[in-house]
Amino acid sequence: MKLSIAIVLFFAAVVAVDAATDAIPYPQGYRQWQHVKSMVIQPGHPLHASFGGIHHLYANDKARTGYRTGKFPDGSVIVFDLLDVNTADSAITEGKRKVVGVMVRDAKKYAATGGWGFEGFAGDSQTERVVGDKAATACFTCHIARKQQEYVFSSYRE
Amino acid sequence: MKLSIAIVLFFAAVVAVDAATDAIPYPQGYRQWQHVKSMVIQPGHPLHASFGGIHHLYANDKARTGYRTGKFPDGSVIVFDLLDVNTADSAITEGKRKVVGVMVRDAKKYAATGGWGFEGFAGDSQTERVVGDKAATACFTCHIARKQQEYVFSSYRE
Repeated sequence: MKLSIAIVLFFAAVVAVDAATDAIPYPQGYRQWQHVKSMVIQPGHPLHASFGGIHHLYANDKARTGYRTGKFPDGSVIVFDLLDVNTADSAITEGKRKVVGVMVRDAKKYAATGGWGFEGFAGDSQTERVVGDKAATACFTCHIARKQQEYVFSSYRE
Repeated sequence: MKLSIAIVLFFAAVVAVDAATDAIPYPQGYRQWQHVKSMVIQPGHPLHASFGGIHHLYANDKARTGYRTGKFPDGSVIVFDLLDVNTADSAITEGKRKVVGVMVRDAKKYAATGGWGFEGFAGDSQTERVVGDKAATACFTCHIARKQQEYVFSSYRE
């Protein structure tokens, strides 16, 4: 009896560790990664409520390969870095960070969402998650339109 | 007599090599450098004629040190990458490259312009120079205002 409890506790612990491991990590150091391209989304744009401001895409080394070849290997990480904008005197300058969006490639683990795991970190927080288990509805419903591009919207701008 | 001609030709050749060496090289690979920050300059801005569009600043490793410490070591290179913009449907997207501006740090060689050499390459050309020997008037007259920041306008945006 005591043994079965121990076994149950053991498996519960393994599951807990797995859940923690499954969480997409904050993309440390992404500001030093490859800058892919940028875009400004202004008031009136259908995505303004979610993505208004200026965003920059960054790619780690594996994702660079993906942008180049069209095939993103497992371990590819793409960051969508969204900043607020200050519009004054006929110039648009960068304001505070709104969210750090992350796509992590693992064809097997994230098979349900096109082989990509999605997460977002609020503002400058490395722990406040804004996607969590809602990737299928919050992210993939739009990304699915880009199936032919491995679900990635951006392409590398030379 | 023949010897003096040879000597003259020798020195002429040395001067020609020096002149070629002095030319600021195109910053090969800068798109893989550190992305520092970005900004959009719109119609109505006093610098629109020269710098209208979206620009990104990139720093090589030495210039990264400069942004961090406030002291740019010799060999620092900063690139001002200016792209045209397409404004449509409440979004600003990147268009064609207008100019690749370059600042190269060499305190001694460029002492007359604050220790920085300036050059610009038109569009995607790596050879069509738009500054040449006009750095003092075309670039430094504005950069001189930033003497306290070692003549650099941008600062690293985290």
